[in-house]
Amino acid sequence: MSRGTCRVTFQPEGRTVFVLRGTKLIEAAGQAGIILNQPCGGEGTCGKCRVEVTDDAPQPTSADRVHLTEGQLTDGWRLACQLEIASDMVVSVPQETRFFEQVVLTEGKALRHPFRPNVRKKLVTLAEPTVADQRSDVDRLQAALGEDGLEVELPLIRALPAIVRSGGPEVTAVLQGETIQWVEAGDTTGQLWGVAFDIGTTTIVGALMNLPPPPQADLQKVASRTNPQVHFGDDVVSRISYIEQNANGLEKMRERLLTCLNDIMAELCSAAGIEHDSIYEATAVGNTTMSHIFLGVDPSPIAHAPYVAVLRGSVDARACDIGLHINRHANLHVLPNIAGFVGSDTVALILASGMACGEEVQLGIDIGTNGEVVIGNRDRLIACSCAAGPAFEGARIQHGMRATEGAISKVVVNQEVEVAVIGGGKASGICGSGIIDAVAELLDAGIIDPTGRITNPEDAGDVPEPLRRAIVTFEDQPAVVLVDAAQTRTGGPVLLSQRDVREVQLAKAAIRAGTEVIAAEYGVAPEEISRVLLAGGFGNFIRRSHAKRVGLLPDISTDRIDFIGNAAATGAKTALICRDSRQEAERISRETQYVELAARPDFQAAYMEAMMFPPRA
Amino acid sequence: MSRGTCRVTFQPEGRTVFVLRGTKLIEAAGQAGIILNQPCGGEGTCGKCRVEVTDDAPQPTSADRVHLTEGQLTDGWRLACQLEIASDMVVSVPQETRFFEQVVLTEGKALRHPFRPNVRKKLVTLAEPTVADQRSDVDRLQAALGEDGLEVELPLIRALPAIVRSGGPEVTAVLQGETIQWVEAGDTTGQLWGVAFDIGTTTIVGALMNLPPPPQADLQKVASRTNPQVHFGDDVVSRISYIEQNANGLEKMRERLLTCLNDIMAELCSAAGIEHDSIYEATAVGNTTMSHIFLGVDPSPIAHAPYVAVLRGSVDARACDIGLHINRHANLHVLPNIAGFVGSDTVALILASGMACGEEVQLGIDIGTNGEVVIGNRDRLIACSCAAGPAFEGARIQHGMRATEGAISKVVVNQEVEVAVIGGGKASGICGSGIIDAVAELLDAGIIDPTGRITNPEDAGDVPEPLRRAIVTFEDQPAVVLVDAAQTRTGGPVLLSQRDVREVQLAKAAIRAGTEVIAAEYGVAPEEISRVLLAGGFGNFIRRSHAKRVGLLPDISTDRIDFIGNAAATGAKTALICRDSRQEAERISRETQYVELAARPDFQAAYMEAMMFPPRA
Repeated sequence: MSRGTCRVTFQPEGRTVFVLRGTKLIEAAGQAGIILNQPCGGEGTCGKCRVEVTDDAPQPTSADRVHLTEGQLTDGWRLACQLEIASDMVVSVPQETRFFEQVVLTEGKALRHPFRPNVRKKLVTLAEPTVADQRSDVDRLQAALGEDGLEVELPLIRALPAIVRSGGPEVTAVLQGETIQWVEAGDTTGQLWGVAFDIGTTTIVGALMNLPPPPQADLQKVASRTNPQVHFGDDVVSRISYIEQNANGLEKMRERLLTCLNDIMAELCSAAGIEHDSIYEATAVGNTTMSHIFLGVDPSPIAHAPYVAVLRGSVDARACDIGLHINRHANLHVLPNIAGFVGSDTVALILASGMACGEEVQLGIDIGTNGEVVIGNRDRLIACSCAAGPAFEGARIQHGMRATEGAISKVVVNQEVEVAVIGGGKASGICGSGIIDAVAELLDAGIIDPTGRITNPEDAGDVPEPLRRAIVTFEDQPAVVLVDAAQTRTGGPVLLSQRDVREVQLAKAAIRAGTEVIAAEYGVAPEEISRVLLAGGFGNFIRRSHAKRVGLLPDISTDRIDFIGNAAATGAKTALICRDSRQEAERISRETQYVELAARPDFQAAYMEAMMFPPRA
Repeated sequence: MSRGTCRVTFQPEGRTVFVLRGTKLIEAAGQAGIILNQPCGGEGTCGKCRVEVTDDAPQPTSADRVHLTEGQLTDGWRLACQLEIASDMVVSVPQETRFFEQVVLTEGKALRHPFRPNVRKKLVTLAEPTVADQRSDVDRLQAALGEDGLEVELPLIRALPAIVRSGGPEVTAVLQGETIQWVEAGDTTGQLWGVAFDIGTTTIVGALMNLPPPPQADLQKVASRTNPQVHFGDDVVSRISYIEQNANGLEKMRERLLTCLNDIMAELCSAAGIEHDSIYEATAVGNTTMSHIFLGVDPSPIAHAPYVAVLRGSVDARACDIGLHINRHANLHVLPNIAGFVGSDTVALILASGMACGEEVQLGIDIGTNGEVVIGNRDRLIACSCAAGPAFEGARIQHGMRATEGAISKVVVNQEVEVAVIGGGKASGICGSGIIDAVAELLDAGIIDPTGRITNPEDAGDVPEPLRRAIVTFEDQPAVVLVDAAQTRTGGPVLLSQRDVREVQLAKAAIRAGTEVIAAEYGVAPEEISRVLLAGGFGNFIRRSHAKRVGLLPDISTDRIDFIGNAAATGAKTALICRDSRQEAERISRETQYVELAARPDFQAAYMEAMMFPPRA
């Protein structure tokens, strides 16, 4: 299998992925979690996805020649959407080519989210007190800061006389919103970091960002962990059950989560070579249940009709009171939710993607352990939650696994089954994008029929021989061998079982039916949607045509489907670096209409219909 | 001595004082801490000081007949400023006759401080969550309250699901400023109390007030204690020395204070028959050092040139974090200071007296352990602190004591020395007003000369014999026996010594010189001042003519001198019952100009001059 696999390394991250020969470079970047700008949808007409191939760049395409100068071509610059990978390569991706960096980080443009962190530092020289100037310490500090109405709280007041009398007249004030968070002796303006968390049901991601002025925020370090609460159940409902059925269940769940967040923080600090004390603010997004647990708020009402949350709005609290090991005066900002099953991760998606700003009607789909779908534009937004289950994260799939090393992330079915494995070695199992690939390709090969049934081996007479041999019987039902036992790490084959196909049908039907219902509520046909934004770890790997093939997405031109990566995490980072975005998030939270699918008579019909696969084209 | 003493009881307080026969009733009320309205200055021309003598009312005066109806006269109503006490009596004082109640508490007038407490309760019915109304618990609560922008903090969010699911749909929200402080199941609107503290260097007063709507705040209970910090020194400078010289000195000092405040609170709760939990807000005033210690802020910088405070502005904190045993969600509001030696007690005086509102230029003098003087009107205010020392509180006086039972509070010198004793029994010592009386009367009798020297017994030939016998030698200096050993509780005489007179000279000179300096700074001659407002426990007892006689006050018509009682405590109560007054206090704190007397070349000259007593009229 590795004969057809190429190794692609992206700089400056140094992140490597293994892809099938012929894969577009822009897709490989997506697999590496690097989302490139492609306003033209990969047509080669906008020239925005330029990258530098650092050695042995392939021949330029005609689109390359239109958008790049002779010198650039010589230096190895190419358009990532046009480059079909034919060999191992190392690619350097500049900031301006990156989707979110372009949206949130680049300077010098009319940005929606200018670099203006909520937490900032200001070096001031305090006036020496004299008999002619007997202003109090606090008054002198406030005057030196030259901003009206900055609040000072008691812990700082208590510490202030020692701080201002310990060194020279120079002190560094840490400002957080309209509050003087703390004052440090001397000039500490160089040490100012923030951390943004995306607390998923299954995966937790932390990003450490450097926040000092002048505006030069760089995403510095990212780390992730499996949410240790998976021990208590795969999905939010089983987590809530645990809380309801166990004494101190909420506190136990919360402690596990905090331990994980602090582990991530320790890794980030160590990678950046900084102290925990240098982190002055944290932001967090998550689904509503995760946010409740994180904040120590009982999420139980979410699990029972009528499924209400305790809390919708954003929360600011002292990070140390919550249990985060960062600067003890640091603030924690948890973004607002929309409803019990549409959390701040969806608010963050809307915020980061700009869905709530433009005129065009876009569809955002975040596929994680649950699926959230949102449709709309700046005038109106509608969201729903689809009980898709964790199939696309590899759970409840016979050989399913998360999209980590050893997972089959891509499947091609021609005369035989070919796969690409994350990390390039032997396969251990299959992740969500691999499952979609497998189902789509097997549909096209006629091995899965539109009802989802896998052809019995004895009925597969017209199937090419190598492929026919892959059809086996597993637990009294047909199944397809994707990788045989000799080529796996486990010693057994990696199969796609009949039950796996049913799981995929249930999951994709839930998302598709949710999409149909909210599109109808919004008053557009799914085909009239300007763009589909696919978010979530899963979205990075999926093949757009295959997502349509299995019916997960409506029948919309492929060039109108964008991968936007981990938009939830990007939203958390946006809140960290742009304080005004918090009001925008609050507005999104308040104004997005939530549709409870369970209460919609049209949902069941749409769900049943979406269960089938579209017929072969 | 008790032959000439009458017992007067004031209702509804049930407070009793003993006064010399012939004392005006309005003055006796002042001794009882009940300050009556007297816009005309006691001339009998305004009719505002009416009280009801409940039995055996004396014959009406001509002023009574002008201002009161025949029916009122028959019922025993009299003008307190005209009534000379001739026998024991019981007097009932209606709300509208009370100075501060008229200013801050009465309804139905254009009040400066309308009844609008910062803490309030609102009974609401929460909408039942349904699939059609999936608003979060917090959203439903906020909507039911119908006020925009009320904040909810994390501890309440954590408690909310249990509270709203524990009883019926009715809950009582406790609102504090713009925050929802807490939510209680059911209707608890009837239980809403607040406590206002005046933390003096020597005396601490607490007032418990009932705050439920409709506007019917009554001053319910008052309790006071000696500040237990007196153990560490008489004045603020010695308290600060203790803090500087002892490990954990600040914390020790603070603990003593908190114990005292909580003792007062326990007494108040027990007297009102309520639980500590029913107190939802506390306000406090004090001099700047006391406020710093109370809040756990190191006051040391105040004691050293250039005498700056750490904190000028107001502070809001959770009362339980500070250590007050009231409702655990209650707020504590500490009013703002002006400078290191002019604290929130002076801000409270300005606030309560209305000095900062009118056009007329008034002089406020608060005599406690220290003396603060403030002059001005709504356009401009100037304040200073006079290092008067605690002589007027009875400290550093040979037989000095506080104005409690057994203290000589009044002295009359004719053929002999006559005194009135607080409580009516035998004398134990002499308090501030008695000392002023003694000095003033002995000046008029020629026994003290304008330089402050007490006539030697052998030079007192022209003095009436019984009086001459009162002049003795004590520690090689002349002294005057006020009460001889047979008539005291101690078995020894109560004396006014030469050193006592010197202490009075130093104290009154400091206050008078401060007055002169800030009046000059303001640009008025002291005689041009519209009104003098005398505040502090001491102010309640002093005879106005005698305060002028010793030179404590400038030579201003007696009817322009008002007693305003414990104005600091009244300011603390005002902040409790009128949230808008807190902004006014902040403005007073910011805009009042502070004059550092130590830095003024004109102060020393004024001080030397004020040391002498005015010559006999």
